Amino acid sequence: MFVSDNVSSVSPQVMEAVVATNVGDATGYGGDEVTDELTNTFSKYFERSVTAFPVGTGTAANAMALALATPRFASIYCHQYAHIETTECGASEAWAGGSKLVLLPGQHNRISPEIFRAALSRIPRGARPQAAAPAVVSLTQGTEAGTVYPLEDITAIAKLAHEHGLLVHMDGARFSNAVVKLGCSPAEMTWRSGVDVLSYGATKNGGICAEGVVIFNPEIAKQQGFLRRRNGQLYSKMRYLSVQLIALMQGELAEKNARHANEMARRLSKGLAAIPGARLLFPVDINEIFVFLPDEVGRRLTEAGYQNRLRIDHNGPHYRFVPAWNTTANSVDTFVAVASGVQPKR
Amino acid sequence: MFVSDNVSSVSPQVMEAVVATNVGDATGYGGDEVTDELTNTFSKYFERSVTAFPVGTGTAANAMALALATPRFASIYCHQYAHIETTECGASEAWAGGSKLVLLPGQHNRISPEIFRAALSRIPRGARPQAAAPAVVSLTQGTEAGTVYPLEDITAIAKLAHEHGLLVHMDGARFSNAVVKLGCSPAEMTWRSGVDVLSYGATKNGGICAEGVVIFNPEIAKQQGFLRRRNGQLYSKMRYLSVQLIALMQGELAEKNARHANEMARRLSKGLAAIPGARLLFPVDINEIFVFLPDEVGRRLTEAGYQNRLRIDHNGPHYRFVPAWNTTANSVDTFVAVASGVQPKR
Amino acid sequence: MFVSDNVSSVSPQVMEAVVATNVGDATGYGGDEVTDELTNTFSKYFERSVTAFPVGTGTAANAMALALATPRFASIYCHQYAHIETTECGASEAWAGGSKLVLLPGQHNRISPEIFRAALSRIPRGARPQAAAPAVVSLTQGTEAGTVYPLEDITAIAKLAHEHGLLVHMDGARFSNAVVKLGCSPAEMTWRSGVDVLSYGATKNGGICAEGVVIFNPEIAKQQGFLRRRNGQLYSKMRYLSVQLIALMQGELAEKNARHANEMARRLSKGLAAIPGARLLFPVDINEIFVFLPDEVGRRLTEAGYQNRLRIDHNGPHYRFVPAWNTTANSVDTFVAVASGVQPKR
Amino acid sequence: MFVSDNVSSVSPQVMEAVVATNVGDATGYGGDEVTDELTNTFSKYFERSVTAFPVGTGTAANAMALALATPRFASIYCHQYAHIETTECGASEAWAGGSKLVLLPGQHNRISPEIFRAALSRIPRGARPQAAAPAVVSLTQGTEAGTVYPLEDITAIAKLAHEHGLLVHMDGARFSNAVVKLGCSPAEMTWRSGVDVLSYGATKNGGICAEGVVIFNPEIAKQQGFLRRRNGQLYSKMRYLSVQLIALMQGELAEKNARHANEMARRLSKGLAAIPGARLLFPVDINEIFVFLPDEVGRRLTEAGYQNRLRIDHNGPHYRFVPAWNTTANSVDTFVAVASGVQPKR
Repeated sequence: MFVSDNVSSVSPQVMEAVVATNVGDATGYGGDEVTDELTNTFSKYFERSVTAFPVGTGTAANAMALALATPRFASIYCHQYAHIETTECGASEAWAGGSKLVLLPGQHNRISPEIFRAALSRIPRGARPQAAAPAVVSLTQGTEAGTVYPLEDITAIAKLAHEHGLLVHMDGARFSNAVVKLGCSPAEMTWRSGVDVLSYGATKNGGICAEGVVIFNPEIAKQQGFLRRRNGQLYSKMRYLSVQLIALMQGELAEKNARHANEMARRLSKGLAAIPGARLLFPVDINEIFVFLPDEVGRRLTEAGYQNRLRIDHNGPHYRFVPAWNTTANSVDTFVAVASGVQPKR
Repeated sequence: MFVSDNVSSVSPQVMEAVVATNVGDATGYGGDEVTDELTNTFSKYFERSVTAFPVGTGTAANAMALALATPRFASIYCHQYAHIETTECGASEAWAGGSKLVLLPGQHNRISPEIFRAALSRIPRGARPQAAAPAVVSLTQGTEAGTVYPLEDITAIAKLAHEHGLLVHMDGARFSNAVVKLGCSPAEMTWRSGVDVLSYGATKNGGICAEGVVIFNPEIAKQQGFLRRRNGQLYSKMRYLSVQLIALMQGELAEKNARHANEMARRLSKGLAAIPGARLLFPVDINEIFVFLPDEVGRRLTEAGYQNRLRIDHNGPHYRFVPAWNTTANSVDTFVAVASGVQPKR
Repeated sequence: MFVSDNVSSVSPQVMEAVVATNVGDATGYGGDEVTDELTNTFSKYFERSVTAFPVGTGTAANAMALALATPRFASIYCHQYAHIETTECGASEAWAGGSKLVLLPGQHNRISPEIFRAALSRIPRGARPQAAAPAVVSLTQGTEAGTVYPLEDITAIAKLAHEHGLLVHMDGARFSNAVVKLGCSPAEMTWRSGVDVLSYGATKNGGICAEGVVIFNPEIAKQQGFLRRRNGQLYSKMRYLSVQLIALMQGELAEKNARHANEMARRLSKGLAAIPGARLLFPVDINEIFVFLPDEVGRRLTEAGYQNRLRIDHNGPHYRFVPAWNTTANSVDTFVAVASGVQPKR
Repeated sequence: MFVSDNVSSVSPQVMEAVVATNVGDATGYGGDEVTDELTNTFSKYFERSVTAFPVGTGTAANAMALALATPRFASIYCHQYAHIETTECGASEAWAGGSKLVLLPGQHNRISPEIFRAALSRIPRGARPQAAAPAVVSLTQGTEAGTVYPLEDITAIAKLAHEHGLLVHMDGARFSNAVVKLGCSPAEMTWRSGVDVLSYGATKNGGICAEGVVIFNPEIAKQQGFLRRRNGQLYSKMRYLSVQLIALMQGELAEKNARHANEMARRLSKGLAAIPGARLLFPVDINEIFVFLPDEVGRRLTEAGYQNRLRIDHNGPHYRFVPAWNTTANSVDTFVAVASGVQPKR
């Protein structure tokens, strides 16, 4: 429980939409009406015309988006603890033709405009053939530390990027969680702030197996057909993926799911933080909590059957908890009670 | 209609299984019980212990299977009109680290043991650094021409391959269609005939977006985790893909669906072949028909609203029709009637 | 003897030029005066401004030129027996980002404009995402069969290529041999006929370890710095490679060397063709001979210590002989005498 | 002057050896007697049987060595300022099939055993499919900061590496400079300390365009033929590269050249360090000097025509000077005098 939002089931509305799609034949490989509708839905959702298509996993979304944004091979700037660096087995480098991730530091897993500016000031070196040409900066929103970039930081970084000829990618694995946290529109958090291409996360937020690649910058849309085919992401029965994304955007289901997950995280973090000796590692902006817990708390959780592992990394030993769209307040309260030693058994 | 089996909808039993899976949380990335069950189901289905996992597309299945079967980069033997050569935008070459497809001729899209033996006799050249080392031969069963390899050919080719240190891959995009045509067991058509790794096709046969990679040769299973992650094929909510494959194998649904599609193809081919001037290009072993039709037949079909395009390639101008698991006898008969000029409107 | 022109030593003028360059320090990585002079020499040699640089091997020249001419990954048209297909272990595919060679047939290892036109007519298929986008056609001049393309064929193929948005690469491993055969200028055989980028061969023609990449189309010159560095072809002491190419172009040394090699090939082919039962496989346009020889001729050569191996391929059993710039008429005559059974021992 | 040891000319003995090799024909692609002798020379030089071959550049040597040492794709540990990270445009990642460099910190560009041990302790994460499997650690000896690893550090790091299933690569671009500094044997600094594969630097030390790849671990030698061909490093007239390496190893020419360069660096560093306000950034172990110089010193050097650029990086503003095998004591003294303001004009 709370191991990841990946362990959650699928939103009933998404599943119903998939079932409802299952009528008759439809043109393959995205030529179907549902996928046409997806493009319209994305364009409405982002208040402008976009090129967009579904892929099957978050890694595929990031690697595809970054491949689109880089010529042949190039340097991709990202945070040193970005998911594309730590957890995707070199997918983005490989799909982008052998690109190089350039790792930047930054508090709470956020690259600050100052750090990015300093990195860009070293580009003169980078632009010589010794290094691959800088081509793109990737921001995770919300971050892998459960924080969010304020809009002004995205805007400042994007401005710097564009001034130096780089494009801006947003890894939005938890896109909706960040949107509801900031209370802004999807458009404001993306192209209005300078984002060129987005990995739109849906699976963690109630989908089955669908993420969106949303291209705001029309100049990088050209190779998408080839890249999708070559990377095994051109789905023959695409309507069943497209409809998942539509269902999430319709009626603000994505925002509702994300808001709930964020709330459960706040509830959980509040409960855990009240335990003597506990300490939150980062602000809890979205639905991820990183927390130091005294040994006896961990023991109590283990004894009660919770499977969360102690994590040891540059932050020291800690736990990570990720409530999801389907987490109940009751399950949070029980967990906190167990952790606090109040309730001996769940 | 009949444009491809890709345009078909999803088998009700598959959809029901997906819906039934949607209960509660489950460990991500394949650690769930359904995916455990998938391994068992595949092992029972193939009458031996296998390593198997779902991927999202047929291209992903082939590219993954071939990447597993090749070291770093290598030569992959296949028919000159194999799907991996003509239709996958270099996916297998790229995923296998920059491998090279070596194209072999052969009637009805089948490599004969004789042709393969002759190709292997030229390996002395191939084994020098001038060419990438030969590593695998890929057979499509049923073929892209709608034919099937007899078991003795698979066995003979696999024997030759193994004698020369090559492995054997089977592209089973229409695996079940071939199994029911041959009346053999899945085991007989694969590892009992010498196949080392299989792309098990499910999407065309009633699935949503799931294919299986089935590894019979345990020596090549080692890198699968890395390759799946890097290529964006490690699904977080894997249970929803795994259950599609289970549903198809349970109760012989895959065979029922495939048998029906084959029968509809036979019915259609019989009807079309009876039209004066029509000529089948290949034996109709499975659910694909390639047929030359006189100009007026094409005109009649177009006028009646059918969208099949005239194809022009090395076989000359012709049409391709692919009935699916959900094709009705009635729709076939109507189509034939229109084509024959018997019925003016569908 | 006659095994390949690769076995020859280095032209005295080339070696002298290298020795003469060995004075004092010089800026590294091509910033030196000799490399500046190379650009001038190439520009004069080709009667127009070019971007050009030395690389170390013929494989490097071809792979680099093709990487420059293709975006990310793409289809590269070439003859089915082109060196880039048969002998370079997938270098061009790999350097060009995972491109695909599309093999074309053609008599005497030449693609005819008709065959190329037919291949291009199938591009509608190719331009869909199923296949990598066609980007370049590669012609070997003189061919791997020892023949040359007439200028009108190069022109016709280049015209077709450009009309379809493809670029034209020339593999000039035996460039000078073809130039002297045709009696045309280097400009006429390249950019005046529509060639966009050339692998200029020097090693076989009296160099040590230097080939030139000559870019006529300025649009594809941009990524050369990155590609050279990444592929290990940015030589720190570049002057020693540049001067080899200069020495060959100065005073028409390249043409002299090539003319001599061609003459020795004609002398040899004439001698061998006169042996009863012998049969030349191809016209002898340059310095390569492919010839069927009766068994007893092969035996005589082996007994006399010649190391030429019998080759067995699609042309049947035959021998290949490649005189070089340093082959003497005497050695040819002795060889023919031995082959003819006139002289028992060399 | 002192810009890099790359700007130096070629040792007379090396050039003479190349000229002396230029007699008659020789089997191509390394089948010649000189290349046979190279293997013997390397084996004697390293006091054990090795597999070794020449390549054309330092980048090629590193990328080739690392490709040999990694399966398909993998993680390569190196210092964050290693040449393979900062200056080779992703060559090692690309040649090694899309590998990932994992950057480690460390004073004076050296990875300490402690830092490496800490990195390895995080491998449990790395060994899961999220990250490419750790496969090799690359040490630069002497380092990019002009320092050397003591033998005990190499040994300790190699021991840790082997315990964790990793191999050890040494980037020996300035191999001989380190050997003479340590006063040890080439064997002691490599395989006796646990090195599995070496990039043996020759170009900077008096060669033309030759580096050696020396494989001590026979298990990784298998794919070298394919990798050399594919990466354009299989030289047809290999004897001319092989002989450069032989000439350097014979009569300890490499050590003599390196010792001289080191001495010139010491002389230069001593002279510069005596200038008021100057400060050496690192110990001067080999022939590289990194030094902070007051503004007026830079001005004096510029006015006198020296072309050394001010470098600005994480070390702050500084200059880098690299005497070479052919640097004269006189030129050092003049340079120091100019820098010191003693002598107005060189």
